[in-house]
Amino acid sequence: MTEKRKDFGTQCLRGAGQVFFMENALTGALFIVAIAYASYAGGNWSTTIGAVVGLIVATLTARLLDCDEDSITSGLFGFNGILVGVALPTFISVSPQLWFYVVIGAAMSTVVTAALGAMITKSWGIPGSTGPFVLTGWLLVAGAYTFGALDVSGDHPELASDYIKGVTMIPSHVELVQIFFRNIGQVYLLGNEISGAIILLGILIASRVAGLAAICGSLIAMATAIMLRAEPHSVVQGLYGFSAVLTAMAVGVIFLKPSPRVVVYALLATIVTVFLQGAYDVLTEPLGLPSFTAPYVLTMYLFIAPKKLLAPHPHSAVGEHLVTDTNN
Amino acid sequence: MTEKRKDFGTQCLRGAGQVFFMENALTGALFIVAIAYASYAGGNWSTTIGAVVGLIVATLTARLLDCDEDSITSGLFGFNGILVGVALPTFISVSPQLWFYVVIGAAMSTVVTAALGAMITKSWGIPGSTGPFVLTGWLLVAGAYTFGALDVSGDHPELASDYIKGVTMIPSHVELVQIFFRNIGQVYLLGNEISGAIILLGILIASRVAGLAAICGSLIAMATAIMLRAEPHSVVQGLYGFSAVLTAMAVGVIFLKPSPRVVVYALLATIVTVFLQGAYDVLTEPLGLPSFTAPYVLTMYLFIAPKKLLAPHPHSAVGEHLVTDTNN
Amino acid sequence: MTEKRKDFGTQCLRGAGQVFFMENALTGALFIVAIAYASYAGGNWSTTIGAVVGLIVATLTARLLDCDEDSITSGLFGFNGILVGVALPTFISVSPQLWFYVVIGAAMSTVVTAALGAMITKSWGIPGSTGPFVLTGWLLVAGAYTFGALDVSGDHPELASDYIKGVTMIPSHVELVQIFFRNIGQVYLLGNEISGAIILLGILIASRVAGLAAICGSLIAMATAIMLRAEPHSVVQGLYGFSAVLTAMAVGVIFLKPSPRVVVYALLATIVTVFLQGAYDVLTEPLGLPSFTAPYVLTMYLFIAPKKLLAPHPHSAVGEHLVTDTNN
Repeated sequence: MTEKRKDFGTQCLRGAGQVFFMENALTGALFIVAIAYASYAGGNWSTTIGAVVGLIVATLTARLLDCDEDSITSGLFGFNGILVGVALPTFISVSPQLWFYVVIGAAMSTVVTAALGAMITKSWGIPGSTGPFVLTGWLLVAGAYTFGALDVSGDHPELASDYIKGVTMIPSHVELVQIFFRNIGQVYLLGNEISGAIILLGILIASRVAGLAAICGSLIAMATAIMLRAEPHSVVQGLYGFSAVLTAMAVGVIFLKPSPRVVVYALLATIVTVFLQGAYDVLTEPLGLPSFTAPYVLTMYLFIAPKKLLAPHPHSAVGEHLVTDTNN
Repeated sequence: MTEKRKDFGTQCLRGAGQVFFMENALTGALFIVAIAYASYAGGNWSTTIGAVVGLIVATLTARLLDCDEDSITSGLFGFNGILVGVALPTFISVSPQLWFYVVIGAAMSTVVTAALGAMITKSWGIPGSTGPFVLTGWLLVAGAYTFGALDVSGDHPELASDYIKGVTMIPSHVELVQIFFRNIGQVYLLGNEISGAIILLGILIASRVAGLAAICGSLIAMATAIMLRAEPHSVVQGLYGFSAVLTAMAVGVIFLKPSPRVVVYALLATIVTVFLQGAYDVLTEPLGLPSFTAPYVLTMYLFIAPKKLLAPHPHSAVGEHLVTDTNN
Repeated sequence: MTEKRKDFGTQCLRGAGQVFFMENALTGALFIVAIAYASYAGGNWSTTIGAVVGLIVATLTARLLDCDEDSITSGLFGFNGILVGVALPTFISVSPQLWFYVVIGAAMSTVVTAALGAMITKSWGIPGSTGPFVLTGWLLVAGAYTFGALDVSGDHPELASDYIKGVTMIPSHVELVQIFFRNIGQVYLLGNEISGAIILLGILIASRVAGLAAICGSLIAMATAIMLRAEPHSVVQGLYGFSAVLTAMAVGVIFLKPSPRVVVYALLATIVTVFLQGAYDVLTEPLGLPSFTAPYVLTMYLFIAPKKLLAPHPHSAVGEHLVTDTNN
């Protein structure tokens, strides 16, 4: 928090890194490489362009609004913008109006970040985290259904009763490895195991303990989803694990001081996140919306709110995105 | 805030005016004329009767509960009640039970107003504004579906995938003028351009700068909705503009101190409100509910929460429904 | 609040009693008898087993997390767990994974209780009450739809337009008596009039004024539902009354100091709760979810938030679950 003002490029790259709580420009650069790799593999560059535009617009908006200097420097106003920038082109076909939508959406994500900071962080010490992305993403994808210039390319809405359940769900060895890495890649909406591996590398460069938490989160989510026989296609795509990865990192390492009791607490939170992934799918599908990282956001808010119970030294142990930049 | 206690009639008329943030009894009287004109034109007087009943019951409830004296005198406990009183007969057919519903709903709107005041206003300086109307209106219209004595006369619920999008949306000159005024009239649920013109006159009588913000809000909303090719019928009815009009007034003039930066901020907020109008239509239609002013309420809450960023002199610049009564 | 630490069994039994705000172990024991009687009558013991498991796990979790000692002793960490434990086996068929779900769900209810305590109770003096049960129950039932190992046995989701309304709803004398007691039993999800009578006896043992409020709540709800011609089958099952019973107790006796004005306020709140029961049915049915006690929770939060208006002596009159234990 006593950092000097960094140049705009560093602020943006750290913003990319903060999606996984890493205030590290190199990590952020690797994350953008992971997005670009998925664009290359899928032949669709709009998500990478959206990521860069969203990141720049969100960070710039924070500067224009004179948001907290230290937070901007730490990249805390960029990570929701980059996620909005990846998400909108993932679900909406390219058109001139899409880019207008991305720019306004990224600027909106900064306002929502500032709003949550003034509300839940100030009053209750709960970090907003990717909540602004979830809210902005939901509202803008929902809105797109009503606008003729914006074509939502995702699946049709379905009711809870339409769900296909996994009667037998025993993934092969190859699939288990794919699930493990996609659980990480899907945080950036990337169903690509190579991208997931690049992202994990980026986390490990910045913090080994955070990387360990991500690994544990992915494994716990995989085991829980298979035990409960979640819908196999979603599990293989990594959709039952990405929120759990974030919960394991956030509750186990980032926002609470690690201890044996915190490890058990984080384990409980990670399992709950898998349950909530199922719940959000049921709750948002009828509206034609993806769940985004909402299962993580709600779990984390609920498990961090009573943090005094688990933080004997709250002043040093609890804060927003604590992991320090090893890149200085 | 240093006003003397006014008589009950003035409190009620100011309550009508406060729907557009105007603490002005003459303005409020003109708004009721606008509602009555729409009733006359449409041949349905239940909305005007509901307006008067809702306004009186809500204001009276605030007095019986010993709510804040200054707020009652300013009309801040009446404007949600009048909206509940207009909305319920708009969506529910007339029956003896409807009037019971209106009376209880108006009293409930006062309790919700007091609750939001004790929560979001006290903790975060966010005015409740028409949030109590939106919450009460949604719950009571939803409830009416289950009660045999209350017949919801609106459209059938539809899913997001049922939306008719505007492939070509080029309104004629006459339509553009209609849209402009209906964008204002629909704040009171009036799809009538004459009523919209009377309301705009009422605003201009109380505050020219607020009237200018309303005009800009209507124009920006119209341009944005047409550019995104929103559903033409809704646009022509003014349904894409009424929340944006309130946002332009609230963010640009009422709750923040006007400045060049606040103008840009209000422009962003107004465009976001149009996006959210689309979103709320998608989110509330499957439940058989209108969006009411929810797009305005959410946008305003999010853009006012971090108000310190834009208010160098918060004590004088930020407050609830600041515009002073020019009618004293 | 100056109580000595009680043994674990007493903490659990009081937790059962706190569902109806009674810090009384004998009352709690009677409530468990009421659950067991319904299991016996219906031939399904999974709800009773779930109740005991949920109660124990939730209370134990609170002890492991070092939650507030006095609150644990008063049973305030057990009542959401017992409700989760009854609700999940009511809506999900028995399987090994169900019991995993119940254990994690009960532990989660304790975390949510602590979270709401740190948020709405600390900031606004609003007790969390059964909010944690509603949130946990909704999320876990919703999630179960996506898991092959968890079979949701309830009705299929339906839209608001599918509602069967009660064209003529004139219950017989026998039905009126059944409704009266089922309105009380359904708080514990028991559509059994004998269980309802046992519960009412348990309340009266601990507090006669609280029992009187429960009786009035049940009668007011019955009259309101019949007047509005609510869906007859739901009314006869007690589904339009159980939230109203809790509202009448909470607003009329438990969280506000009784006075003539509070009685009128509680009457308004009780009628509003019946409206909201209809609303929640419409809002949660399309998602395939029961409303649980959500109509009570929202009404109570809204009516207690501005409690200063009705509590001239807030220090002695307002608190969480005030009724003292007559069982010491």
